[in-house]
Amino acid sequence: MYKLLKTDGNARRGQLHTVHGVIETPVFMNVGTVAAIKGAVSTEDLETIGTQVQLSNTYHLHVRPGDKIVKKMGGLHKFMSWERPILTDSGGFQVFSLAGLRKIKEEGVYFQSHIDGHRIFMGPEESMQIQSNLASTIAMAFDECPPSKAEREYIQKSVERTTRWLARCQAEMKRLNSLEDTINPHQLLFGINQGGVLPDIRMDHAKRISDMNLDGYAVGGLAVGESHEEMYGVLDVTTPLLPVDKPRYLMGVGTPANILEAVDRGIDFFDCVYPSRNGRHGHVYTNHGKLNLFNAKYELDDRPIEEGCGCPACRRYSRSYIRHLLKAKEMLGMRLCVLHNLYFYNTMMTEIRQAIDEGRYKSYKKEKLDRMAAGE
Amino acid sequence: MYKLLKTDGNARRGQLHTVHGVIETPVFMNVGTVAAIKGAVSTEDLETIGTQVQLSNTYHLHVRPGDKIVKKMGGLHKFMSWERPILTDSGGFQVFSLAGLRKIKEEGVYFQSHIDGHRIFMGPEESMQIQSNLASTIAMAFDECPPSKAEREYIQKSVERTTRWLARCQAEMKRLNSLEDTINPHQLLFGINQGGVLPDIRMDHAKRISDMNLDGYAVGGLAVGESHEEMYGVLDVTTPLLPVDKPRYLMGVGTPANILEAVDRGIDFFDCVYPSRNGRHGHVYTNHGKLNLFNAKYELDDRPIEEGCGCPACRRYSRSYIRHLLKAKEMLGMRLCVLHNLYFYNTMMTEIRQAIDEGRYKSYKKEKLDRMAAGE
Repeated sequence: MYKLLKTDGNARRGQLHTVHGVIETPVFMNVGTVAAIKGAVSTEDLETIGTQVQLSNTYHLHVRPGDKIVKKMGGLHKFMSWERPILTDSGGFQVFSLAGLRKIKEEGVYFQSHIDGHRIFMGPEESMQIQSNLASTIAMAFDECPPSKAEREYIQKSVERTTRWLARCQAEMKRLNSLEDTINPHQLLFGINQGGVLPDIRMDHAKRISDMNLDGYAVGGLAVGESHEEMYGVLDVTTPLLPVDKPRYLMGVGTPANILEAVDRGIDFFDCVYPSRNGRHGHVYTNHGKLNLFNAKYELDDRPIEEGCGCPACRRYSRSYIRHLLKAKEMLGMRLCVLHNLYFYNTMMTEIRQAIDEGRYKSYKKEKLDRMAAGE
Repeated sequence: MYKLLKTDGNARRGQLHTVHGVIETPVFMNVGTVAAIKGAVSTEDLETIGTQVQLSNTYHLHVRPGDKIVKKMGGLHKFMSWERPILTDSGGFQVFSLAGLRKIKEEGVYFQSHIDGHRIFMGPEESMQIQSNLASTIAMAFDECPPSKAEREYIQKSVERTTRWLARCQAEMKRLNSLEDTINPHQLLFGINQGGVLPDIRMDHAKRISDMNLDGYAVGGLAVGESHEEMYGVLDVTTPLLPVDKPRYLMGVGTPANILEAVDRGIDFFDCVYPSRNGRHGHVYTNHGKLNLFNAKYELDDRPIEEGCGCPACRRYSRSYIRHLLKAKEMLGMRLCVLHNLYFYNTMMTEIRQAIDEGRYKSYKKEKLDRMAAGE
């Protein structure tokens, strides 16, 4: 159940109450693709850096270790030793981006495993069944994510099919939640708005899915090649049409600036691989911009990545040491950078919530963006 | 200063008092080659798993980041954020095993960097200077480590040179410790006994270096291809000749069984890459033998690696989950296995010390070896 606590302009401060605890929103979910955050980050680490929600990828877990294995082990929470909320994606995005030869039909998608090439079928029912086996807190609807630059006609047809798939997802999730051997009978389902960067299709679709009384609504198919302005434009026309009393999730977004702008347009949930992926490459976020720790100027820099930062990397280690680890290809270097970046994102979300609570979101956003743009 | 607290047969229970704290012996040192334990293990992790001493490799740190960089950053302790004792090796072993073309002369060794091929010279003085820059708690003498199957004549000549080098190491360390800008003016120096598997050369050398009043004595050049019996044979004839009031270190050894046997022959210090290297390959130590977590039989095994183990892996994660991480090549899988293995070794040393304290070392050793050999 979502509780809207306060608004500040279009920015929303809320809480999503789940069987795995309360999620304070706006929130940034930390992406653990195969039931682990890349960079040797443990669930114990995640507790230390204030992670509220972990996101796991349905497609990856379906092919390895297999969702039936995870179910036998008691579901994802028990499997990876994480008691707080977990969101699973539908598998759709990976099917469209990772898998080999695929064929989209009304019933679903036929494709090949990216691991061993074996033939797999996934439709709305299969996606719900897999996510039910994984027993996440929040399941995502199975949708098609068409290329943002596809023809209007293709996008129109794709969105219509996605809407039909959504109804099938909803019916199947209802059925699965009522089964006796289900691990999480309270699994939530979020629908996904699509429509490329075409405002009329986006708006029409947003209205139609808003009537379906889902547990939450995502805006999908963005951050796939369109400009930031196009992305913000889509949010400007869709979020006003989504139910006020349901959480809204902007999928796969993004940079700190993207998040600050999207919160200002009424978004509550985010996820992105940037902090972990950039961390593994030695790129770290600070309030004075992003640093590349491979840079020679950090060789003798005994300061932490960011002065005053409370993350496990900054509490103990210098830029000089972390740079040495990265250059020597020591995994610890990657781990420390990933921990710092996730902490940076999580902490920014705390600041965002506080700013909305105190009715000063616009000035907070401006100040944060200016500081990050100014550099060290 | 070494304090012998108790003996039980030839097994010794002692303490080495250093400027970085007291080392309770027998002790297993955890190997952090380039100033970090491989497997994304942080110094915070090491504190959690009860590590007393970290070992760092002089040769690796000399070529990257460079010992002068480490000195500018305040020495190894400050650089890697570790307050407890650190032992550095002399660089000799790496020069003989890793480096490219090399030439051994009376003054030292000419060789090529394994990273960029540039020509390096290292002799006793250079090794001491580098270790003084690193500012470890214990420095090791620069020696030649001849192949254990080399001709008697070669080993004889090599050992004589190693003895001359040891005198030069001792003089140079004394000079360096008295310099005004030295970071650790109390740096200790351990000499190294060599002689292949030839008892008379080993014994003669042990007697000669025992007269030199060093801070500790190592038995080197073992675990390089000879049989376990040959290794134990060398210990049987050398340790009785080493000073009772100085610590003894068996370099690069070994398996849990090797350590149990060597303690029984009067050894106090150990180091080995086995626990970290095996961990990175999913091989984990238990009191019921070693497990290969890649094995299919662990797919649905919800037990920890070892029941009752207090390590960060066993406290939270199942064999099934760790196996999944290893199969998916997630770094977290390697990290958890390395943490478990180092904890296993550290905990065995605690048991060893307790058994000696209580005068039951022989029976403890037998029971431990029997249990490990019996399997699950």
